[in-house]
Amino acid sequence: MNRLFIVLVALGLPSILIGIVMNWSDIPIFIISCLTIIGLASFIGRATESLAIVSGPRIGGLLNATFGNAVEMIISIFTLKAGLIGIVLASLTGSVLGNLLLVLGVSFMAGGLKFKTQRFSLHDARYNSGLLIFAVIIAFVIPEVFSQSLDASDTLTLSIGVSIILIALYLAGLFFKLVTHRGVFSSGDIEKEEHEELPEWSKKKSIIILLLSTVAVAFVSEQLVHTFETLGKTFGWTELFIGVIIVAIVGNAAEHFSAITMAMKNRMDVAVEIAVGSTLQVAMFVAPVLVLISLIMPESMPLVFTIPELVAMITATLLVINLSNDGESNWFEGLTLLAAYLIIGIGFFLL
Amino acid sequence: MNRLFIVLVALGLPSILIGIVMNWSDIPIFIISCLTIIGLASFIGRATESLAIVSGPRIGGLLNATFGNAVEMIISIFTLKAGLIGIVLASLTGSVLGNLLLVLGVSFMAGGLKFKTQRFSLHDARYNSGLLIFAVIIAFVIPEVFSQSLDASDTLTLSIGVSIILIALYLAGLFFKLVTHRGVFSSGDIEKEEHEELPEWSKKKSIIILLLSTVAVAFVSEQLVHTFETLGKTFGWTELFIGVIIVAIVGNAAEHFSAITMAMKNRMDVAVEIAVGSTLQVAMFVAPVLVLISLIMPESMPLVFTIPELVAMITATLLVINLSNDGESNWFEGLTLLAAYLIIGIGFFLL
Amino acid sequence: MNRLFIVLVALGLPSILIGIVMNWSDIPIFIISCLTIIGLASFIGRATESLAIVSGPRIGGLLNATFGNAVEMIISIFTLKAGLIGIVLASLTGSVLGNLLLVLGVSFMAGGLKFKTQRFSLHDARYNSGLLIFAVIIAFVIPEVFSQSLDASDTLTLSIGVSIILIALYLAGLFFKLVTHRGVFSSGDIEKEEHEELPEWSKKKSIIILLLSTVAVAFVSEQLVHTFETLGKTFGWTELFIGVIIVAIVGNAAEHFSAITMAMKNRMDVAVEIAVGSTLQVAMFVAPVLVLISLIMPESMPLVFTIPELVAMITATLLVINLSNDGESNWFEGLTLLAAYLIIGIGFFLL
Repeated sequence: MNRLFIVLVALGLPSILIGIVMNWSDIPIFIISCLTIIGLASFIGRATESLAIVSGPRIGGLLNATFGNAVEMIISIFTLKAGLIGIVLASLTGSVLGNLLLVLGVSFMAGGLKFKTQRFSLHDARYNSGLLIFAVIIAFVIPEVFSQSLDASDTLTLSIGVSIILIALYLAGLFFKLVTHRGVFSSGDIEKEEHEELPEWSKKKSIIILLLSTVAVAFVSEQLVHTFETLGKTFGWTELFIGVIIVAIVGNAAEHFSAITMAMKNRMDVAVEIAVGSTLQVAMFVAPVLVLISLIMPESMPLVFTIPELVAMITATLLVINLSNDGESNWFEGLTLLAAYLIIGIGFFLL
Repeated sequence: MNRLFIVLVALGLPSILIGIVMNWSDIPIFIISCLTIIGLASFIGRATESLAIVSGPRIGGLLNATFGNAVEMIISIFTLKAGLIGIVLASLTGSVLGNLLLVLGVSFMAGGLKFKTQRFSLHDARYNSGLLIFAVIIAFVIPEVFSQSLDASDTLTLSIGVSIILIALYLAGLFFKLVTHRGVFSSGDIEKEEHEELPEWSKKKSIIILLLSTVAVAFVSEQLVHTFETLGKTFGWTELFIGVIIVAIVGNAAEHFSAITMAMKNRMDVAVEIAVGSTLQVAMFVAPVLVLISLIMPESMPLVFTIPELVAMITATLLVINLSNDGESNWFEGLTLLAAYLIIGIGFFLL
Repeated sequence: MNRLFIVLVALGLPSILIGIVMNWSDIPIFIISCLTIIGLASFIGRATESLAIVSGPRIGGLLNATFGNAVEMIISIFTLKAGLIGIVLASLTGSVLGNLLLVLGVSFMAGGLKFKTQRFSLHDARYNSGLLIFAVIIAFVIPEVFSQSLDASDTLTLSIGVSIILIALYLAGLFFKLVTHRGVFSSGDIEKEEHEELPEWSKKKSIIILLLSTVAVAFVSEQLVHTFETLGKTFGWTELFIGVIIVAIVGNAAEHFSAITMAMKNRMDVAVEIAVGSTLQVAMFVAPVLVLISLIMPESMPLVFTIPELVAMITATLLVINLSNDGESNWFEGLTLLAAYLIIGIGFFLL
């Protein structure tokens, strides 16, 4: 498996360079870019996993989420620069849905096929579910609902206000988890487990690979974004479908890879932290930062999703909170999440 | 009480035959059909209860739900055949609302007046609430919301996809409960209790009564359906009210009867399984099967409820999940469910 | 702090009398009325706290909620009399939001800065969350959704039905908590704590102050209401903003004062009872009573909120239920509630 990813990157990066020089058409560039990003994401995932083993499960989960969403953030900035606001909002939606339903679903499923019942921290699950409701059901819903009675300028004002509040609460949450209530969120059992595992790469090697991969992702993302227009015309795909499904799956490949690995090692705490933590980072950090960045772009992006996007995120949130609030998972809960993803995916495909 | 039901059937069945030959008008046929179905449903209920005592609480609950919904399914197929799609969707809504609010409410109330606090399995409550959210809040909501931007053909495609996923997940759930996680869902206490009770009828007698009653219900249902048009015109009732209230109450009489009986015997596990299990069977099996059956009917039925139907089901689901996720019930929780049913009932009556 | 309130009342009451005689303009009358009501509310709060110490936490919480909402009810009746239905509905919304997000948020925050984790009764939290869903998500949502297909007369009929059901269930809930399930809802620990504290005022003095303050609030409220029209015109504020933010904050000053006091004394049970109990009383008693009172007013008030009002209440309810259903609080949960209040407040300000 790891060899395949090395091949993807080793062939992909030079191919894109040749493609640019030779002026290849958009479809091959799109396919090569996607595969290369997935390959690079696997390096990011492995480097992060090595760092996670050294740093403990919480910092590890945080690192995972950060670098998984670095890919997301980089692709989105280039997409914003190209003026494709609809695709950015759609890919944020896709990222939320992909993490909550696909990543968590596959993790529950893959772990559940090996272990009858898997457990994760109830404290974390409660903390996460409170913020999921705050971010998705309040911070995303209010601008949408109120925007229907507001003009464009007031809608943007509301979006900026909500964005600042989201970022502030996200930072306060880190302070809460890492400083004032640190003891509450780390269990002795998990800490102990760490020492039994050896990291694949050294700390130094991990950091270098992380940095190089991130730069490479940025470069490839720029090529990727320019293929979207042709892509839509050729296959008859809408902005929505490209954003919600394609960009989100490519952009979150790292989380998929590492969450599933953790689940199969029965470290469900880390797997949930990657999937839900990554969702929270997209909703409370990436999305509002993109709103603020868009203010210096040619076109500003209000935090107003379409109704189908919003409804899909709300219902996914309610399902995940309900399935995770007992601190246990099994294969059937995983299958339920995947079934929900499939239903929503069919919906966006037809839209 | 039981004598009353015998009288209902003994008088009802011949009366309908005579009515058909003599060409009676629709109103008396409607009344006689309803009463006869209720009588037959009580036989189905008692036969199922006898089988349940022999087979343990889970299989018993399953049997109850199946035969209660056999009535529902049979009436719906005849209604579909008559092209009354609106009534079918309304009666599915009414069945969900009736089971969640009315059956569960009366059970909590009736049991709660005898016992201060009644307990039921937390594992079951969690399993049920996950699937309730999946079925009502995802599988029913997505087609509704997305259909507003889709044409009729894509809406039907989405409905078919959602229906297949619902049925597949329902079957996977049975596999989960009965095979891979059987131990988790049966408590020793309940098993023991079984042996203290004697079934009313033998296994053989129960099965024969079940089969005969089901055939009789099918016959009476066909007569019933043909009276709906006249009924609406005579009383000024809409399709919605006939479906949500009348058909649902008549079609679910068996569940009402057996759930309340179980609640008053302090076997709340079985009562909840009947009410919520029946809801899940309607939402995840009866409804999608009817969508698929409708494809060979003159008019296809998409899985698209009206907004009031959908909102009523969503809010009922949220209330039930909240009240049942502590694994305890009392008379006031029952009263709350009944108050919710009353509010929604008034709404549909006025609509 | 207490001296400030004495000054507010001692200067405020005569000023208003002088203002009426001298025919002052509306803006100073508005400011003085608000400050006087806040001062009076603090007396109500302190008198109630004294009574609460004598009567135990539950009766104490009930007393708090009742007299806090006496202010609310009095202002609303005068507003109804002036035909300002929009402001009444907005101030009910504001009262629900203010209690759930602002009062509870500040209590969690203030208590959480002194104590790492605070606990409150899980039984109460479950009872409260069931009724919150019933009141906000069923009893408020159904009239709104169904009214879109109903004419004005049927909408009023539905509102009256819902109102009667709400009041009946509220009274049944009191019977449940105080009579049939009394033991379940009072913990020995809390009772014991009571005896360690001495009430500020005697029972008799408390009651006299309560009565006098309530009469004074009624008088000042009438002056306040007559300033709303000028206020809106002068500052460009809408009815919605005046109702949701201004009237609600002024009308709930008593709850704010006493809930925060209790939270800082680590009596979180009482603080939650004040905030959530007060919300329930507004939603299940004050609101439906106002609907019924409006029937003898020049203009009847249906129980139909605007979409932004309703969505704000639903999302706030879901957040509070999620944060409180573990029976624990900390400063970050408080901050999350306040952030939600801020987002919704910005929304209503821009609307």
